[in-house]
Amino acid sequence: MERVYLDNAATTPLDKEVMAEMVNVMRNYYGNPSSIHAQGREVRTLIEKARKTVAGLLNATPAEIFFTSGGTEADNTAIRCGIAAYNIKHAITSKIEHHAVEHTLNMMLEQGVIDKLSFVDIDEKGNVDYVHLEELLKNNERSFVSLMHANNELGTLTDIERVGDLCEQYAAIYHCDTVQTMGHYKHDVRKLKAHFMVCAAHKLHGPKGVGFLFVNHNVKISPMIFGGAQERNMRGGTENVYGIVGLAKALEIAYAEMENHQQHIQELKDYLKLKLNEIPDVYFNGETDSEKSLYTVLSVSFPAMDMADMLLFNLDINGISASGGSACSSGSNIGSHVLTGIHADPNRPSVRFSFSKYNTKEELDYVVEKVKEIVDKNVAV
Amino acid sequence: MERVYLDNAATTPLDKEVMAEMVNVMRNYYGNPSSIHAQGREVRTLIEKARKTVAGLLNATPAEIFFTSGGTEADNTAIRCGIAAYNIKHAITSKIEHHAVEHTLNMMLEQGVIDKLSFVDIDEKGNVDYVHLEELLKNNERSFVSLMHANNELGTLTDIERVGDLCEQYAAIYHCDTVQTMGHYKHDVRKLKAHFMVCAAHKLHGPKGVGFLFVNHNVKISPMIFGGAQERNMRGGTENVYGIVGLAKALEIAYAEMENHQQHIQELKDYLKLKLNEIPDVYFNGETDSEKSLYTVLSVSFPAMDMADMLLFNLDINGISASGGSACSSGSNIGSHVLTGIHADPNRPSVRFSFSKYNTKEELDYVVEKVKEIVDKNVAV
Repeated sequence: MERVYLDNAATTPLDKEVMAEMVNVMRNYYGNPSSIHAQGREVRTLIEKARKTVAGLLNATPAEIFFTSGGTEADNTAIRCGIAAYNIKHAITSKIEHHAVEHTLNMMLEQGVIDKLSFVDIDEKGNVDYVHLEELLKNNERSFVSLMHANNELGTLTDIERVGDLCEQYAAIYHCDTVQTMGHYKHDVRKLKAHFMVCAAHKLHGPKGVGFLFVNHNVKISPMIFGGAQERNMRGGTENVYGIVGLAKALEIAYAEMENHQQHIQELKDYLKLKLNEIPDVYFNGETDSEKSLYTVLSVSFPAMDMADMLLFNLDINGISASGGSACSSGSNIGSHVLTGIHADPNRPSVRFSFSKYNTKEELDYVVEKVKEIVDKNVAV
Repeated sequence: MERVYLDNAATTPLDKEVMAEMVNVMRNYYGNPSSIHAQGREVRTLIEKARKTVAGLLNATPAEIFFTSGGTEADNTAIRCGIAAYNIKHAITSKIEHHAVEHTLNMMLEQGVIDKLSFVDIDEKGNVDYVHLEELLKNNERSFVSLMHANNELGTLTDIERVGDLCEQYAAIYHCDTVQTMGHYKHDVRKLKAHFMVCAAHKLHGPKGVGFLFVNHNVKISPMIFGGAQERNMRGGTENVYGIVGLAKALEIAYAEMENHQQHIQELKDYLKLKLNEIPDVYFNGETDSEKSLYTVLSVSFPAMDMADMLLFNLDINGISASGGSACSSGSNIGSHVLTGIHADPNRPSVRFSFSKYNTKEELDYVVEKVKEIVDKNVAV
């Protein structure tokens, strides 16, 4: 069997159709979109067509979409420029946000840009305590709220419509980190009351190194990266044209095929959950029901083992790619702040299996077989 | 005749060999370089191999090379993080730097991060007044100096070794914007006393949306974009792997073929200069001699015309792509701050012709013919 790739929350394989569009641009279009001659204008057209595609799918206007180098830059821009635009001194987030949010907010607190950073309570499944959120909103001056849609390690979904309504009620600015859900659910920016939303194309079978930031048209921010007049003066730097075209194509495919993919992947997840439940003392981190969790992610808590840190390694040498935390920082030797945030048992190793449209039931049978072997060998009876 | 592309200072066509390497990565490697499984590690290896290649060509160590989304992000990082690292309150630049430098420094002055921004005198050819530079260094507390190697609109070269020596003498931190010269001259970071240097891959037949920042190993900066542990905690965000591989390949080709290309392009430039000199009242902006100017750029000042703003348009409809200023912001409706900076006659239209290895003498003959037609038709006698 070829390798089984179950690390799709870290990154996804590039869709062949997306690649074809990108290669076409790489081969045939090379003008600088800021140049006013024909070769520049045709590339400008590619970018604006991509922007229109993205905007259309989100029910946004093209002027609300800004292309970036990825989800992290988009998160940084939303948080830093959003807070600066309104001169906000209080931010609300949670202990289980992505480092792109967490580290950025911590830095702003350290630098004194904000005076106070509050953490909304979350339960052991990663659910936001909405009553506590309302208290924090009520008891502080105008707040900046950054709460993600789906947790990248647990899969637990936040009721972002509810968060949006609360933010509206208390005139807070809401940044919704949608990196894990863009292309997996349909977002309607006119219904959802988020001021900022983000996308990283490589999470939905698009290219690495490109993403976008949605900024509600009522919000006026200054750039984070200064330079030329690109992105309507909002983000200096010659555009990653192939990446932008690839992003739009990836999102288009994701929206067109969403129902089928969701059903297929949800079945895979439910199947793996069922099979892994057969192993004694295995349970799951975060929510796992279809209404409460992202269908692409299943975080599994294994019994304490002699060789806990060898679990992922053993999967790897058996040809299975999975993750033991947020892959965005899994290269570092520190534990998962998300699992810490939900007070997970530090003695139990966790594996995040994350799925895509390309995975099959046969792959999961192989994974279950190997997981059982490893657990049998390593768990002290 | 196919279109003649003479806007290579704005961006260059992607080299076919570079594209082939990128497509190979797009097709065959999709892991997240931060993932610890085999598919992540093989992508991590691609990135580190690229870093080693780039470092080797510049006589740098791999730990001094940080990949970015392009030259603008690299410039922003150097300036903002360099100034913050040393808590510097005085910066020195010139009136003809790229917007990525100029706007960033202006923003830092506006925000009060620096107290004072000094502009070194430049002459009407865009040459830095080194005596004035020394005065500014001498008469201020520790300075941050940002002076580019080659001006993107004029081609005028700055003696960056001299600037580096002066900065060393006065303990200043030197950021050298090398966007226009990376891949066109050989840089040796161990000889040049710059603390920061930058690259945008698309200026040397590499891909758009990727670049790098060289940071001398003695300098310790904090990140500009916060997130995961990528780039040794210096730049959050999943890496643009195809772009990074393409950048390294482009720089490798540029270094391997540099002498031939330089000779070929210098001949083209000299030829165009000679031919355009035959037109009455045509002269050149900036330096044009081979030792004093970048061989890829020739900025031409034309006589006042009835339809000055139609000059580029007329070239365009004749199939010639050139630029009337820095293409990075030529989409905006404001005049060139560089031509303003050297006190160029505002009544005279300027055209920047910029060359690459792909241009030919035959193309230039066509350009000269068309330029003469347009001037004949439009210049009031």
